[in-house]
Amino acid sequence: MYALTFHYGQRHDAEVRASERVARAVGAVRHVVQTIDLRAFGGSALTDAIEVPKSASVEEIGGGIPVTYVPARNTIFLAFALGYAEVIGSSDIFIGVNAVDYSGYPDCRPDFIAAFQRLADVATKAGVSGASIKVHAPLISMSKADIIREGARLGVDFSLTHSCYDPAPEGLACGHCDSCLLRRQGFRDAGLVDPIPYDT
Amino acid sequence: MYALTFHYGQRHDAEVRASERVARAVGAVRHVVQTIDLRAFGGSALTDAIEVPKSASVEEIGGGIPVTYVPARNTIFLAFALGYAEVIGSSDIFIGVNAVDYSGYPDCRPDFIAAFQRLADVATKAGVSGASIKVHAPLISMSKADIIREGARLGVDFSLTHSCYDPAPEGLACGHCDSCLLRRQGFRDAGLVDPIPYDT
Repeated sequence: MYALTFHYGQRHDAEVRASERVARAVGAVRHVVQTIDLRAFGGSALTDAIEVPKSASVEEIGGGIPVTYVPARNTIFLAFALGYAEVIGSSDIFIGVNAVDYSGYPDCRPDFIAAFQRLADVATKAGVSGASIKVHAPLISMSKADIIREGARLGVDFSLTHSCYDPAPEGLACGHCDSCLLRRQGFRDAGLVDPIPYDT
Repeated sequence: MYALTFHYGQRHDAEVRASERVARAVGAVRHVVQTIDLRAFGGSALTDAIEVPKSASVEEIGGGIPVTYVPARNTIFLAFALGYAEVIGSSDIFIGVNAVDYSGYPDCRPDFIAAFQRLADVATKAGVSGASIKVHAPLISMSKADIIREGARLGVDFSLTHSCYDPAPEGLACGHCDSCLLRRQGFRDAGLVDPIPYDT
């Protein structure tokens, strides 16, 4: 297993630090952290000085594409993963996108993954020789509660993980951004205790 | 017109400096130079300590996918362009890939551009709302000679441009890598004088 993480100009690096903890814990052969500057383009609350929306509950999360959408982010992430896979001779790419609980991001949908697969089939040396690189999105149709149940069954240490869009400087989750609300509701629905601390 | 260039870990920055000259000359509104590290993955003569092949003439250029192929490079470039286009509200992306003279790169072929277009149609906010971002590859089916003739007709200052894969530190073109050979042959076929100097 080869891990790949992006420091893409997000306002905090808590998730990058979490990815390093997780990669170590699961015994990744190698973990590449790519630094790219999506801030140079702008256009998202995750990279710019746009306020991250906060709500009291999942029911209050707004509809449509949220301001936390980062233009073409998953296209860029998968493009790098494709190059990485080709270089190391891997035939499989895994990405943790999820389309069910939160379908506002265009690049988290099954249509997007299918289109990227067709691109991968013609974009690489492997594709030309008929040895395709397969893009897997195993969580794409699962509810957050199901993802958490499956993770617990597989022994995932959720205390190493990070979900918050807007953590305190030391990484403490805010508890009220969309990502925190969906995570907390997922743990409640799964009947499990979320081991990470929250600000409120 | 918004320009986008990549410092991707290539062994020289002559083409990046050339892109800055060209962007200025054509009056680009903005020119973003993204620095990304494809060297972290390896696997190409353009980013690693693999020797760039040299030949005496275009006839001697080897077949198959050359060692100068950089895995998934154009996929990554177009993914960034898609994010840039979405942020600035552009409906058109132009990329100068060319499939005729040199068809060894999988990500320079019409199939690749068509697959990226289908991806772009589902990957962005614009795609979801039906306002697609169109990917153009105007040079894809032209011969090098035709490209040079068309450039001359449009008043392109070729003295600002750079093609060499393996220039001297001050940017002087080597004259014998595949890219130099194809460029020089193109100028000869077009009956025009290449204004840049060559080492040999």
